[in-house]
Order: sequence, then structure tokens, then C-alpha cells
Amino acid sequence: MGGLLYKDSGVDTELAKRIPLHLRGHAERTRRRWVEGGLGGFASIIDLSKTDLGGKGLVRGRLALTCDGVGTKVLLAREDKDFAGIGRDAVAMCVNDLLVLGAEPLALLDYVATGKIEEDRLGFLVGGIASACEESGCALVGGETAEMPGLYEAEELDVACFALGLLGEDAGLGGEGIRPGDRVIGLGSSGLHSNGFSLVRRVLEKWGGDLEGEVPYECEGVDTFREALLLPTRLYVREVLEGWLSLKNRGKVRLMAHVTGGGLADNLGRGLCGGVTCVIERGSWKVPEVFSWLASEGGIEAEEMASTFNMGLGYVGVVRGEDFREEDWEGASVVGYVEEGGEGGVAWS
Amino acid sequence: MGGLLYKDSGVDTELAKRIPLHLRGHAERTRRRWVEGGLGGFASIIDLSKTDLGGKGLVRGRLALTCDGVGTKVLLAREDKDFAGIGRDAVAMCVNDLLVLGAEPLALLDYVATGKIEEDRLGFLVGGIASACEESGCALVGGETAEMPGLYEAEELDVACFALGLLGEDAGLGGEGIRPGDRVIGLGSSGLHSNGFSLVRRVLEKWGGDLEGEVPYECEGVDTFREALLLPTRLYVREVLEGWLSLKNRGKVRLMAHVTGGGLADNLGRGLCGGVTCVIERGSWKVPEVFSWLASEGGIEAEEMASTFNMGLGYVGVVRGEDFREEDWEGASVVGYVEEGGEGGVAWS
Repeated sequence: MGGLLYKDSGVDTELAKRIPLHLRGHAERTRRRWVEGGLGGFASIIDLSKTDLGGKGLVRGRLALTCDGVGTKVLLAREDKDFAGIGRDAVAMCVNDLLVLGAEPLALLDYVATGKIEEDRLGFLVGGIASACEESGCALVGGETAEMPGLYEAEELDVACFALGLLGEDAGLGGEGIRPGDRVIGLGSSGLHSNGFSLVRRVLEKWGGDLEGEVPYECEGVDTFREALLLPTRLYVREVLEGWLSLKNRGKVRLMAHVTGGGLADNLGRGLCGGVTCVIERGSWKVPEVFSWLASEGGIEAEEMASTFNMGLGYVGVVRGEDFREEDWEGASVVGYVEEGGEGGVAWS
Repeated sequence: MGGLLYKDSGVDTELAKRIPLHLRGHAERTRRRWVEGGLGGFASIIDLSKTDLGGKGLVRGRLALTCDGVGTKVLLAREDKDFAGIGRDAVAMCVNDLLVLGAEPLALLDYVATGKIEEDRLGFLVGGIASACEESGCALVGGETAEMPGLYEAEELDVACFALGLLGEDAGLGGEGIRPGDRVIGLGSSGLHSNGFSLVRRVLEKWGGDLEGEVPYECEGVDTFREALLLPTRLYVREVLEGWLSLKNRGKVRLMAHVTGGGLADNLGRGLCGGVTCVIERGSWKVPEVFSWLASEGGIEAEEMASTFNMGLGYVGVVRGEDFREEDWEGASVVGYVEEGGEGGVAWS
């Protein structure tokens, strides 16, 4: 008897992995010389110096672009304040992805679609988007609010954000320099963030309790279970731009990953080159209780949990081992190390 | 007895106009020094030279950002090929907006949300997006495909695009230089484009005929009424970048507008300054029959039609009158002129 799987919740995770491959051909034929690198990274990179105006020396700079939504987390939102959190989630999903490339978030646009525009709700949602932008140093510069009766029920809404970031001069975040002895460090998540909610909703259905009631596990600072589940995605902009990528730590970060759909192994793994393995030490950070509650209530196996949720680490990095000092990485936990051999994957110890 | 209004279809157009104002406060507090101009234009402008890296002379250039969806047009799509057209629509809505600022489209990202990912359908949709990107010289660099059971029915989908454009050195498209005697020129639309579909669907309901049947008006090159209604939004990239903004016509274009929600008057009007009026001459271009069919079948008054649909002109510009020669503007119709007086609005003659 197997446990509950993510795909049991109606989301075909294998298909989701195939999709980018399936669509890559379409994207490839639109490729222009100013596009840097391949598809499938955390963000897309545009090199302005490769445009016509760039050739004339009139424009210069490398830009990063990301796009993301919050998935079915939005279906758990009820009150106006819940939507403020959803707004924060949408921004965080995009700007945290920009950070992985070392890009500074410059501007963000939002797409909101709903069956019936409810001004207060929309105000809370956009208020949350604006607050998260402010904290990220990023300007909310526009977007589209679409009233689409027929596609959405009056009270339903979906939100996606698009973010523009500016890359610094130093690259070197591609994971090429990783060597045995390097450390894996991680920043805690605020909870579920914005992935795996179709599975969460499936577990909640099975559980059948009241979301307005007490949280069925230890969780501080919230009044209801709904609030605990909806805790907004943490923004890592300040920690990463002012800490990890500061002058003090220049050149020490080899690779970073925003832990989203697919979990730690998938997200960190896609930047790893062959010949090394990132060994993640279980127990080296505190896994928030929401994850153990979901696992036990839903009968979800550890592997499925780890490939669906962030498990308490929302953002990770591989940093230089030679001169590693924990005090250089304030607020981060050391959660693993790099060892020789393997095909550039993540292993658990 | 009044005719059918857009708002009768469940879309609150007055509210839609209030929304940007309502949300402006939120956006204003996120403003950063690299944001140029105010909100409410066709695109948002980012000036890289105003960033920290710009201050050090490391980056340079002005970018334009747009975001848009296709509204409830997507609800009329049934076959895979219909979705290819929807993909083109989503791209056109974004890149045509970039053109208004004279920006060259560089990159585009798509957000697709659906209840159940159907690979073929998604392939057609993204294929349409990619083709429209190719024709626009724009690279499709990424996006998000979200499978969201519970928010969308299995077969339902929504799509939005986000486009990045690069502004040329010459600005002067702000409408400040407009003077009496200037001409208004326009490029034809392919049909409904991607606005007003909630009203279209309302009329179709009232009509009750078969969308798979013959087109109930003169329309060449299509087999069914559905196909006629779904004709993809025309892309104006080549005409505008290689014609209107070419070296030959340098400095002659004062203002441009992409005719979308709100119609010609709203979209052209928002760039006009006081002291002049754009007089649009009815009958100076051919109004496609789909519009007269909708007006008569839905009992929609002329004013409502003109403030909801493009009425056959998808892209317009105000050009210098002094040395105006029709042959400089190949493919465009002269549809009006600028006269002295008024508060910068559009009038009909």
C-alpha cells in the first residue's frame, strides 16, 4: 500500500516535467542573439549588448526575467487579508527566482484574472503585491486586471507576476566552480510557501477538520489553521543581495536555488555539474511541523514529501569550502556538503 | 429602450476604468528612481541608467514592459487550431502595446493556467505564441504552465503574456508636438482582435445560431463563424518599426495608439494634450461586417460599439501634417485630422 502521491491530487508531476521539453522546440525557433543560455533555468537572461542598439554602444546590461503564479494556494484564501498574503506569494515566487542568478529585482507587473472585480479584495491583493515589491526594492510598474465572467466564478481569482531583474557584472553562479568540501547552506522557509497546494488540499479533504479552528500542530503567531497554511512565501532578497552576494562574500557563492516545485533535490540539482554530489544532512535544520502533520495525516512517504515541498528550506546555496566560516552567513544553516563523484545530483545522509 | 451595453455582459466597464486609479496608490509607494513616467500608459518604462549599476556607467538603455491576456475570447476556442490563434492574440496584445512607445520587442514570457494539461492543446497554444513571437522578432524565453485543478475545469485555460521591449534613442512619441493640420492614420484590424468578447458572447447567446455554421455576413477565407470570430489579432510590428518609425519617416510620428478596450477614442485620447482635438472621419475606412452584424443582432448603439470594439482600425497614429504625403504611409488609411481647440479629445465627423 503506497502513500498519497502528489499526482493523486490531480496534478500530473511527470507531465509537468515533460512540458518544458515539449515546448522547448517552439521557444528555440524564436531564439534571438540577445538571449543568453538555454531554457529551464530559474530565469531567462537577455544581453542588451547583443541587440542592434547594443552593437552601436547605445545600450548595455544583462537582464533576468521570471514569471510565476501561486498555484492552487489561491483556492485556500477566503478573507481579504488572505489575498494580501497571496499577493506577497506571487511576488516572492518571481523575485526569489531572480536572486538565484544574482539579479537585483527592478520591476514587476501583475496579471489578475477574476470573474467579478471586487474592489476591496483586489485592493488587498495588490496591496500585498506592492508591499512585497517594496521589501524587494522592486517597483510595481503595471499589469492587467481582467474581469472574465464565464471563465472564473465571481469570487474566484488567479494571479501571476512577471519580474525584471538586473544582473551584476560578476557571473559565476552557474555551479561550475563547485568542488568537494564546499558547503551547502540554507535559509528557512516560512512554511509551505506556494507549492504543492493541490496535495495539501487533498490531505485537508481527507482530514475533514475546520480550517477556521486551531492549528493541529505547534505554530506560533497565527490564530487559525487557514492562516497557518497561508503564511506567505518568505522573500530572500535582503539576505541574498546584502549578505550572500555582498562585497564581503564576493566570489564565495557557487550556486543558489529557490526551493519550489520539485523540492530541494530537483531545484539544487538542476544547477549541479557532473563529478560532484551535494550531500544534504537530514536533521541539520528544523523541519516545520506543518510538514510532519501533512505526512502523517495524508500518509505521504518521505520521498514524496521531499520532492513536493520545501521541507523548511526555502532558499539554498553552495558556498566555497576553503575558507568557510559560519559567521559569514548570518541566519543561514549549514545543511550539507559537496563530495567527489556522482553525476551532479543531490544525496541525503 | 436602450440597446445592449458592454456592462450587460457582466463586465463593469466603469469599474474597470476606476481600478487603475484605485491601485495607483499601491504602485506609487513602490516607485523607484529607474521608473520613468506615470502609470496608465500603454507600457511601463525603465531607465537602466538610473540604477546603481547605471550610475557606475555599467548599464544603459530604456526598456518598456507590457502585460496582457486575451479576455474571454479564450472561451470561444474549441479546437486545437483555435488555441494557436489565442496564442497569437496574447502575443499581439503585448507587442502592439510596446510599439506605441516605439519599443522593439525583445523577449516574451507566457503564463498558461489550466485545469488539466492537455499536451496537444498546449502545444498548439504555445506554437501560436512562438509564431507570433517570430513574426515580431521577439524571443519566447520562458514562462509558467500551471496545472490548477479546482480553479479551472480540465478543458479550461487562461493565458497571459509579458513582453520586454527596447526603446530607441528618439523619444517624441508622447503627443506633445501635435498641432492643427496633423493627420490621423490607421492600420486595419483583422476583425474583433481580443477585446469585447464578453459582449460578443452575450450577442451570440441572444442570436442562438450555430458557430460551426456559415458566417452570417461577408467574410473571406474562413470556413465557420467560430473561425471568423476567432481571427487572431493583427501584429503591427513590421508596419510600425519598418515603416512608420523607419529612417525615412523619422520624427514624423507624434503619437500612436493600439486600439483595444475602450476603443479608438479612449486609446488615442489618453495620449492627447489639451488645445487640440483629433477629428475622426467616419467612412474613411472600411468597417468590417462583423461589427455591423454585432450591432444589429445585439441592438448595440453606435457609441457603445465604438467604445468597446476597434471597428476595423487596430492601430492608429498622429503624424506631422506639414509635409504629409499618403505614399509615405503604405498600407495605412488617412482617417482624420487634428484641429485647434478642445481638451485633447477625439471627435467624430
